[in-house]
Amino acid sequence: MFTASVLTLFPDAFPGPLGVSLIGTAKNKGLWALETVDIREFSRHKHASVDDTPAGGGAGMVLRPDVAAAAIDAVTASDEEERPLIYMTPRGRPITQTRVREWADGPGVVVFCGRFEGLDERVIKARRLEEVSVGDAVLAGGEAAAMCLIEACVRLIPGVLGDPASAEEESFEGDLLEYPHYTRPREWEGEEIPEVLLSGDHGAVARWRREMAEKTTQERRPDLWERYIRRQGEDR
Amino acid sequence: MFTASVLTLFPDAFPGPLGVSLIGTAKNKGLWALETVDIREFSRHKHASVDDTPAGGGAGMVLRPDVAAAAIDAVTASDEEERPLIYMTPRGRPITQTRVREWADGPGVVVFCGRFEGLDERVIKARRLEEVSVGDAVLAGGEAAAMCLIEACVRLIPGVLGDPASAEEESFEGDLLEYPHYTRPREWEGEEIPEVLLSGDHGAVARWRREMAEKTTQERRPDLWERYIRRQGEDR
Repeated sequence: MFTASVLTLFPDAFPGPLGVSLIGTAKNKGLWALETVDIREFSRHKHASVDDTPAGGGAGMVLRPDVAAAAIDAVTASDEEERPLIYMTPRGRPITQTRVREWADGPGVVVFCGRFEGLDERVIKARRLEEVSVGDAVLAGGEAAAMCLIEACVRLIPGVLGDPASAEEESFEGDLLEYPHYTRPREWEGEEIPEVLLSGDHGAVARWRREMAEKTTQERRPDLWERYIRRQGEDR
Repeated sequence: MFTASVLTLFPDAFPGPLGVSLIGTAKNKGLWALETVDIREFSRHKHASVDDTPAGGGAGMVLRPDVAAAAIDAVTASDEEERPLIYMTPRGRPITQTRVREWADGPGVVVFCGRFEGLDERVIKARRLEEVSVGDAVLAGGEAAAMCLIEACVRLIPGVLGDPASAEEESFEGDLLEYPHYTRPREWEGEEIPEVLLSGDHGAVARWRREMAEKTTQERRPDLWERYIRRQGEDR
């Protein structure tokens, strides 16, 4: 079973969004498991201290390598199958749907949530933590980012979403952002649902959606658009 | 006071990470406010239904424009100062630290959390929702992404973080990812803190950190690196 273990200084932040809706229901049904581990319990220092001043000076505090490693080792010791060790940090490589799919297909994830200025670099190297970022914004800690990552994985686990087709036709699958959606009422505040969507012509609907997906991607994500164009060229 | 209003079908997901640590303390001190609004309360349909099948066919359900607009209008009606209306969606423009700083400097944010396949396009246009994404991964709903966005804003509000210098020397400020951090003990698992950081030579420390920040950015974020190089050229 997919097991997400979260190492955090604030276990009370969980489950948050991971406890509601289909994700929460799936957890209650035993389709996946969430474990939170309090990093502070692995401190053997005075007042359960977990951080110290940065070597070389500067603002803030840095998480100690001995405390972090003790917490990580305690979690992974009982793993029969090795799980990827992920460290949420703005210094990381950006999360991708491709990587999410790989994680979702595996036995689970161990996610380390940073706080303060960051984690001592030596433990990142020694435990080979994969550094992952979720958007180019700096957070106060890794918890909200960890929730994004875990939620993205869990929704791909078979049986979690009602309809597996939902997960296939969406943004980032196939390099394009998704097309716009419409539903009832047919007219709302004087605006009608685009006629083609009501035409019953499945080919025309598919073409319109493709065009809109392309247009949206081109406007909002020149980076994805460039990759899309390149791959289209390669396929020819 | 900075006020974050969240429109969601799952108010129970909150506060999550927004209730802990310095962010939570700041909320309790009245440095910012969090309001959650249950979208479902604005349905006037049978069984408080909020969604319907997508026009043109396809998997999943789409949030109705009438319900979404009623919820948004109820929240914004009492605003003395206009707040940006943000819709969390993988179709959005990626969050940036620059935009976060603008939001943090304003009166707050109204964040709409999507669920199901998405929100009817007409309400996005009619209410001029700013579509924002947090990382190239698809979530089950916008709640975890909204937490990232709000946390990123709140930590920039004066008085929330202990030390304002922390927020200035970090990833995405100045186009570079942050340099690596080290703290005690001096030797851990046979690995020493880099000597330069213990030298007491502030100029050498600053140069080393700059080099490491450049190296990390170049390796992990060719997109940021390219922009950095371009701006360096312009400054000359």
